[in-house]
Amino acid sequence: MSHKRAVILLSGGLDSATVLASARAEGYDCYTISFDYGQRHRSELDASRCISEALGAIEHKVIGIDLDGMGGSALTDSSLDIPQASSGDEIPITYVPARNTVFLSLALGWAEVLQAYDIFIGVNDVDYSGYPDCRMEFIQAFEQVANLATRAGVEGRKFRIQAPLQSMSKADIIQLGTQLGVDYALTVSCYQADNKGRACGVCDSCQLRRQGFINACINDPTRYFD
Amino acid sequence: MSHKRAVILLSGGLDSATVLASARAEGYDCYTISFDYGQRHRSELDASRCISEALGAIEHKVIGIDLDGMGGSALTDSSLDIPQASSGDEIPITYVPARNTVFLSLALGWAEVLQAYDIFIGVNDVDYSGYPDCRMEFIQAFEQVANLATRAGVEGRKFRIQAPLQSMSKADIIQLGTQLGVDYALTVSCYQADNKGRACGVCDSCQLRRQGFINACINDPTRYFD
Repeated sequence: MSHKRAVILLSGGLDSATVLASARAEGYDCYTISFDYGQRHRSELDASRCISEALGAIEHKVIGIDLDGMGGSALTDSSLDIPQASSGDEIPITYVPARNTVFLSLALGWAEVLQAYDIFIGVNDVDYSGYPDCRMEFIQAFEQVANLATRAGVEGRKFRIQAPLQSMSKADIIQLGTQLGVDYALTVSCYQADNKGRACGVCDSCQLRRQGFINACINDPTRYFD
Repeated sequence: MSHKRAVILLSGGLDSATVLASARAEGYDCYTISFDYGQRHRSELDASRCISEALGAIEHKVIGIDLDGMGGSALTDSSLDIPQASSGDEIPITYVPARNTVFLSLALGWAEVLQAYDIFIGVNDVDYSGYPDCRMEFIQAFEQVANLATRAGVEGRKFRIQAPLQSMSKADIIQLGTQLGVDYALTVSCYQADNKGRACGVCDSCQLRRQGFINACINDPTRYFD
């Protein structure tokens, strides 16, 4: 049995839970990391903890960051409304400035301490819906930074940023996770979930998720608040 | 007069204060950002505030991050001793994992909100002393990430990560800052400064600074605690 370590970015949503199950299936000892950045949908932090436990992570760390005062996104700024559906091809108001860059940087710091050379992130082209920091070219550029920024990189170890869901459809992701034993009832994808983890059913993220279960012909265990 | 905006990473030390003065001299409206990451030398946060005010920054933001529980560095882990001088070419124990990557990411987030397309950082080859994330190739790789990660990058604006001190000696930096009116008595470079901002005089950072003033033939205003 392998004892290679990996750090998994865990949002509490469907995608990152599937990534964790997938990394476990590949034999990694998994260390999960979540972020408390003043997001409205705080039940995702509870979800991350439960998912980590259910899927056998060694340790789950929550890093607090006060992006709060920075503004610029409907996900952290309560003066902005979350739209019910996206208006087209443009970058949505739910985009948090430089979020994945910040999250990957902190994951990299922890990975270096743990001597874990694989960092898993659940970004996805299909789910991309206008977020520039979900694209493969971004992930590749960050991997370059990781190897120049760190002691490990200088000493000849190579970090890999793994994005196994990159080109999968939501339905494919749900089928993979179901095979790997992910309990999707534990996951929260909604941008405005309530404190019990129940979803609105109307935001972009909810619609994408619901359609994924329909396309996968798998029963949707999501709890909605109306 | 120009009203282009810049975000300046401000550590409270000599280098970043000089960078701020330099960006101001180039006509930028300057927004300074500092980080409360559980560092031992907390007087650098007071120093950053005073420097921002003295050098005419528009706004100074302190972002809290709990790197604290992450371990791995003498600068954040009180169970590790800070060495009196470096032991040679290796990466020192005062290295904080992925620190500049984390700081630049958060600066990038704020820059995007502010529509500031220039981010200034005071890294330096001479001062490098084993920190991989002070090298020019790291800065260039991060600039690439910045332009792929952001809404601005997608929309055709280009971020620049500026490191104007990259190839300057400590003495050159001190001479430049002195010409630009930096009051170095406000700055704190020591890894174990006391809460009044007084320096130890023996750590790597103190020795490099002291020698800089000597080489520049400029009076050293640093306050030492013994």
